[in-house]
Amino acid sequence: MMPLATGAPQDQKRVEEPRQGSRIGIIAGGGSLPAAVAGAARDSGYSPFIIGLAGNASSEIQLFPHAYAGIGQIGLTLRTLRRERCQRIVLVGSLRRPNLFRLRLDSGFFRHLPELLRFFRGGDDAVLRRVARFFEAQGFEVAGVHEVAARLLAPSGAFSAASPDAAALEDIKLAFRVAHALGSLDIGQGVVVARQYVLAVEAAEGTDAMLRRCRDLNNWGFKSRKGVLVKAPKPGQDLRLDMPVIGPRTVELASEAGLAGIAVAAGAVLLAEQQELVEKADKLGLFLYGASSAG
Amino acid sequence: MMPLATGAPQDQKRVEEPRQGSRIGIIAGGGSLPAAVAGAARDSGYSPFIIGLAGNASSEIQLFPHAYAGIGQIGLTLRTLRRERCQRIVLVGSLRRPNLFRLRLDSGFFRHLPELLRFFRGGDDAVLRRVARFFEAQGFEVAGVHEVAARLLAPSGAFSAASPDAAALEDIKLAFRVAHALGSLDIGQGVVVARQYVLAVEAAEGTDAMLRRCRDLNNWGFKSRKGVLVKAPKPGQDLRLDMPVIGPRTVELASEAGLAGIAVAAGAVLLAEQQELVEKADKLGLFLYGASSAG
Repeated sequence: MMPLATGAPQDQKRVEEPRQGSRIGIIAGGGSLPAAVAGAARDSGYSPFIIGLAGNASSEIQLFPHAYAGIGQIGLTLRTLRRERCQRIVLVGSLRRPNLFRLRLDSGFFRHLPELLRFFRGGDDAVLRRVARFFEAQGFEVAGVHEVAARLLAPSGAFSAASPDAAALEDIKLAFRVAHALGSLDIGQGVVVARQYVLAVEAAEGTDAMLRRCRDLNNWGFKSRKGVLVKAPKPGQDLRLDMPVIGPRTVELASEAGLAGIAVAAGAVLLAEQQELVEKADKLGLFLYGASSAG
Repeated sequence: MMPLATGAPQDQKRVEEPRQGSRIGIIAGGGSLPAAVAGAARDSGYSPFIIGLAGNASSEIQLFPHAYAGIGQIGLTLRTLRRERCQRIVLVGSLRRPNLFRLRLDSGFFRHLPELLRFFRGGDDAVLRRVARFFEAQGFEVAGVHEVAARLLAPSGAFSAASPDAAALEDIKLAFRVAHALGSLDIGQGVVVARQYVLAVEAAEGTDAMLRRCRDLNNWGFKSRKGVLVKAPKPGQDLRLDMPVIGPRTVELASEAGLAGIAVAAGAVLLAEQQELVEKADKLGLFLYGASSAG
């Protein structure tokens, strides 16, 4: 297994050393990433405070100073961030589009209703840009994970025992071409290509669901693993918002789909549970590969 | 319900009146379309002969002069077409990519092995173009369904009781834009958009599977139907090969996904079981709409 070199974030100019003890507010959706970001941020000198989105955030956030708020509790969220002197915030973790009729709403929600209603129209990117702009309009600075926790990013080249062979590199190339075409239309970040054939394209269903349907689609009667999952941000995507992520579960599902490996945009995709991710890939014989932007 | 006007085929110059009793060979995959094409072709003066692909073709083909051949039985297929004096052929019906190790092969398969092996690399279009070229190299003329059975094509405008409203027309516009971008990469022919959000993109899984996953994705807590399925051929697609199709089952699945309707490229998408298709849409309250190429 190759050591995990840290990939260079695309948005170099924003990377900076924090003043020791700088506060950073982490608005945490689901999964293990918010706590990992908090840990990496703390290790590089930040003092993180997590606001867990109720019903989404993992209990791991409780290892750090934290509070909970519902998605509709805008007033509580803003008050908490101000009380904790978190002028700088990061948005991280998975988030399902909420069912509007099941939200717990507070008065801050209704005060900001006109801005909030606009969130629910348009693609993911449009929604997230509006969320970021909302926080900025309230006086906060929205930072990206790559700025406060760069060691969580995918490095360049293979970072597993296995490496992509010539056929896999061809599939990776086609998948990146498709991902870029999709991304410019604000559609998902994942594509599966096997034998130069586009098996699946991710839209609102998410990467896991896409990989699940590839179990049947990638059954060509051959025994050897073929094909790749590619994840990449959309062209021009604001990396502060909704960075693509892979984790151990992604590797498991890619393996069940008969794929040979996973390729991601180096420096622009987050690795959740890095150690387990690489161990899982090595155990199952899949490659993990960070493609440079030329990729 | 509006009467079903016949849409103008895109490839006008190829439409012609057959000499009475002209032979037409129909190579039939699954579904009801091959028999419908045979019926429409016979009504306009052709004398059809169907070769049903074993394991794919529906028993409806038995209403016409017919024979069966396996996908690997190339020799038998060519011999039968020649014996029946079908110099002109049409390829129609659904076809799953075969498991290479389960094919029944004949000596014609092995004689043509080098050409055939090339079929199994590349996107759907590339495969079908090679299949057409293979038959052409054997002295056959490959015609399109739109040339021999134009009455099966989608007309322009609404062809159901319901019509798309302003929001649906916006969703249709975005979905066509996505479909064109995908088509130029030789990816599937279907896209689902609801509230200007791309819910699903079809690749190898097919339209039905894509619609099935939209049941969950289109659940926003609203009661009213929203969103559209758009099907369109790829830009520059050879309409003789793999024309997009919708049928009554498509309407059912679109309804279960909570969509408001289905829009197709007028004159370039086949309607399977036309009468049942329109009746089903009217019963469920969905619109069916043929968009002119301006989108």
